[in-house]
Amino acid sequence: MIRVVECSIFLPLHFVHVLVCPRREVKRFIDLSADETSDLWLTAKKVGRQLESFYMATSLTFTIQDGPRAGQSVPHVHVHIIPRKDGDFEKNDEIYDAIDESEKELKRKLDLDEERRDRSMEEMAQEADGYRLLFS
Amino acid sequence: MIRVVECSIFLPLHFVHVLVCPRREVKRFIDLSADETSDLWLTAKKVGRQLESFYMATSLTFTIQDGPRAGQSVPHVHVHIIPRKDGDFEKNDEIYDAIDESEKELKRKLDLDEERRDRSMEEMAQEADGYRLLFS
Repeated sequence: MIRVVECSIFLPLHFVHVLVCPRREVKRFIDLSADETSDLWLTAKKVGRQLESFYMATSLTFTIQDGPRAGQSVPHVHVHIIPRKDGDFEKNDEIYDAIDESEKELKRKLDLDEERRDRSMEEMAQEADGYRLLFS
Repeated sequence: MIRVVECSIFLPLHFVHVLVCPRREVKRFIDLSADETSDLWLTAKKVGRQLESFYMATSLTFTIQDGPRAGQSVPHVHVHIIPRKDGDFEKNDEIYDAIDESEKELKRKLDLDEERRDRSMEEMAQEADGYRLLFS
């Protein structure tokens, strides 16, 4: 029911940043069914654990920007997951500036009226293999 | 399985801010069982909906600062929920400065070596009545 989107594919930012979103496209968190809500967060928890271990981090930031006034740019519910460790950002809150930048960048990349190059089947297969190992 | 803590009880900050946490005291999100994870987020979703409506907001911020490097001061998993609307913060990210301040304030209030006045049974009963109406 859930798909995992490696955000750094879209976002040339200086930190590891993963989005987890339900397959069904809904705008707001409240629009998810109970099963989708549970699946979303059980998946986010699992992905967070693996990212923290893989990147030798010690903490995690989980955030939903639920609606435009909370910074949401792409109207499809998604959980931001960022592995955190000493010295990653000078001030803890700078992570959220970066998330906001990510949202804007993601929106630009997804806008149909902007040019973008689709990744090839080979690129996507290679990436999927990496995730299969990391999240299995 | 879940309790709801109105954070403004602890925190004299200029915004509405609610914490939802599991009754069982665990440090990290990964420490929650599947049932606790689902309950936590189904409750957070419900509380968010009611807060957004009650405060005539249009969006919500949901965040878990999962571990000290993510800004967690109190080692008991909790979801921050903040109803958001136009003009509540000059820059969206300022909300997270406020959350960090809340964490520190919450920790100071909970530290056993600091003086604090327990609320009376009457105060707590009155507050519980308010929540019963809001979240029923």
